[in-house]
Amino acid sequence: MHNKQDEASENARPHVVIVGAGFGGLEATKVLANTEVDVTLIDRHNYHLFQPLLYQVATAALTPAEIASPIRHVVRNAKNVTVFMDTVEGVDAKAKTLMTKGGRQLFYDYLILATGARHSYFGKNEWARAAPGLKTIDDAFELRQRILTAFEKAEMEDDAEKRKAWLTFIIVGAGPTGAELAGAIAELARCSLVYDFRHINPDSARIILADAGERVLSRFNPKLSAKAHQHLEGLGVEIALNARVNHVDDGGVDMGEHHIAARTVIWAAGVEASPAGKWLAAETDNMGRIIVKDDLSVADHPHIFAIGDTASLTPDGDTEPLPGVAAVAKQMGKYVARRILTDRSSKALSSFRYHDMGSMATIGRGKAIADIYGLRFSGFLGWLLWSFAHIYYLVGFRNRITIGLSWIWSYLTWQRGVRLITGQQEAEQSAQQKAKVRKAA
Amino acid sequence: MHNKQDEASENARPHVVIVGAGFGGLEATKVLANTEVDVTLIDRHNYHLFQPLLYQVATAALTPAEIASPIRHVVRNAKNVTVFMDTVEGVDAKAKTLMTKGGRQLFYDYLILATGARHSYFGKNEWARAAPGLKTIDDAFELRQRILTAFEKAEMEDDAEKRKAWLTFIIVGAGPTGAELAGAIAELARCSLVYDFRHINPDSARIILADAGERVLSRFNPKLSAKAHQHLEGLGVEIALNARVNHVDDGGVDMGEHHIAARTVIWAAGVEASPAGKWLAAETDNMGRIIVKDDLSVADHPHIFAIGDTASLTPDGDTEPLPGVAAVAKQMGKYVARRILTDRSSKALSSFRYHDMGSMATIGRGKAIADIYGLRFSGFLGWLLWSFAHIYYLVGFRNRITIGLSWIWSYLTWQRGVRLITGQQEAEQSAQQKAKVRKAA
Repeated sequence: MHNKQDEASENARPHVVIVGAGFGGLEATKVLANTEVDVTLIDRHNYHLFQPLLYQVATAALTPAEIASPIRHVVRNAKNVTVFMDTVEGVDAKAKTLMTKGGRQLFYDYLILATGARHSYFGKNEWARAAPGLKTIDDAFELRQRILTAFEKAEMEDDAEKRKAWLTFIIVGAGPTGAELAGAIAELARCSLVYDFRHINPDSARIILADAGERVLSRFNPKLSAKAHQHLEGLGVEIALNARVNHVDDGGVDMGEHHIAARTVIWAAGVEASPAGKWLAAETDNMGRIIVKDDLSVADHPHIFAIGDTASLTPDGDTEPLPGVAAVAKQMGKYVARRILTDRSSKALSSFRYHDMGSMATIGRGKAIADIYGLRFSGFLGWLLWSFAHIYYLVGFRNRITIGLSWIWSYLTWQRGVRLITGQQEAEQSAQQKAKVRKAA
Repeated sequence: MHNKQDEASENARPHVVIVGAGFGGLEATKVLANTEVDVTLIDRHNYHLFQPLLYQVATAALTPAEIASPIRHVVRNAKNVTVFMDTVEGVDAKAKTLMTKGGRQLFYDYLILATGARHSYFGKNEWARAAPGLKTIDDAFELRQRILTAFEKAEMEDDAEKRKAWLTFIIVGAGPTGAELAGAIAELARCSLVYDFRHINPDSARIILADAGERVLSRFNPKLSAKAHQHLEGLGVEIALNARVNHVDDGGVDMGEHHIAARTVIWAAGVEASPAGKWLAAETDNMGRIIVKDDLSVADHPHIFAIGDTASLTPDGDTEPLPGVAAVAKQMGKYVARRILTDRSSKALSSFRYHDMGSMATIGRGKAIADIYGLRFSGFLGWLLWSFAHIYYLVGFRNRITIGLSWIWSYLTWQRGVRLITGQQEAEQSAQQKAKVRKAA
């Protein structure tokens, strides 16, 4: 197959390799589908993930299948698109080749880097074990398992202090992910679980949302921030602002002068880009994102583009780079795909411009804030807008239907359908079984 | 809380401990709900699993949440029932106490052992890694990940021999689980995946169903067996009967004189009981099941009962013990619960009798065999019966609705909504991250 691709590059059909099937990579693929280029789309997962709803998987409201679609299935009708499940490990820009973990060498004429971001502990990687973040489906499983297990452990705990630590949840970082998680955990405790225990009252759980900044959801307009703050407090979330986290371990969090005992800590405080910048030894910003030119190409590499969370682009007149949100990634994906097609047809294309349609965040059942073209909404109306927008943007017709039903179901019954603790115990057992196997072998 | 339970046992209300929330344990709990006894239900999972449909999770047709319900939620209205998520590690029958992994000592007046079974490799535990079985949700995730990954690897493989091995699936054991898995994998390859690849034709996959016996689904009437055989062959499943498996490893299976190269091998050939028999040093049969008296109590332990896959009971006049199926477990659960209540009221209760309503098994889309009170059905009519019966017996109203929708959706579109590969890669990454953490620490 390598040969086939090499041949292709000698022919008229150029080979576009897209690394990452997130919002940006998938959008670029869709524009290039059934055009005069050959596309190879590489992702380490076999699915495209609708990340904005991942917190609902972590809090047992949705199943992963409701927010993820197999990439192959999404692009099945684009016969010029080949999908590989593999992990890219490096790029040789001189040879126009990239190397994968699976041992593949792939020649490209154009390369689109859409490799996304992971959570960052600002150099404190040792906190990762005690305070996992939320970026992948397996992260969501891990959080769901920890959150649900905490209530189970509390139910079985005789010691009041220890029980309290099991029932304390600290979310570090009050951006959209942190705020949405805090709201969802509060609802889980106050509503869904409330009749299910005999020794504890889940309603007594403390949910603490901590942030180093001065307000929650600081990327929003201050008025909407204040609304969100109010919604969160209405759900019984304690909000700690200007809170400096000095230490995190299995026992809890040191915040400012205080130690708060908590067995569940979730990290939603920051992200860093994937190592794509290192592959090219390109100039990156403080989050590791490649600083791109105004056509999203990488300096000195006119055939390599970086988009979404992999790219750092500060629009003229602005002081901050564009934020790492789905809308930016999608618009960038669409632009670079057109840029490549235009390049072939030698037409000029103006530089990339982001059209900001606004942003939204939800806080628990029936409450959200939304800022759409400068119009501000909050409360139930905000939530309706948020729901419609998210269902509309979900990839795949089936997902829209089943998510719609899941939400209506949760809304009517206060129940969460996915309260399954999987993984942890099995991991222990399988370790035991492996040990047994080793012994037997 | 220990004290509370000790007090309870001194009072009039006896304490019934049920270990295992499968079909048997849950049925016993339901009968004892809101009666004059206190019940503690212990399970190592937080969910009740509808195991007969687990193969549909392994083959990406259903999500785990559709076939599992949180135990607490199922019994939330039974205020005399306490649920603990814990693993029992031993029983002190003299002291009427059981010990858990979580360090709990639990006093009981009556004990119901409903701890189920796991797959058995007949002493060849070293085959477990190459040929996993299907008993838990995490088993199903593992199989799903292996089956879907095999097609991904085949798509990326340049070597024809190796590609063939990735596209060969061997299922060892042609009981209900094996036959249902073989049919479902055949449909996945022949229908759901058929347009999604560029370098391979998933339709060319070999699915081999091997059994040491003389026919598939040998517990059924020979005519129905023959029908199922025919249905399976119609789906392109190769059936190897009288097939002795001599060796299994990552490269494939040695069967009789032949070696068949296969990267995916699934074990559905046998089960063994949980270690409950060892806890009591009770007499067990060759599968490790406790040989129970005709009131399902354990010899010399009139207050300890074993039910479902934990019990071995051969009805008068029969030569074989009752099979390890849901209906037996449920009827046994109901019986022992009544037995305990009767014991309290000093009324006599006749010995346990199993009422066999029949059995059914499905083979792919729209085909099944069913034997109901001696009436035999196959083909589409069998499948309709099978579908209604399974939806009817599913615990929880929501599950019934969503499974119904999932099936209708799959039926109309040939699509499978849950084609997500999770776990494996993440496990690697998390190992890397942990290594990183260790380095940083």
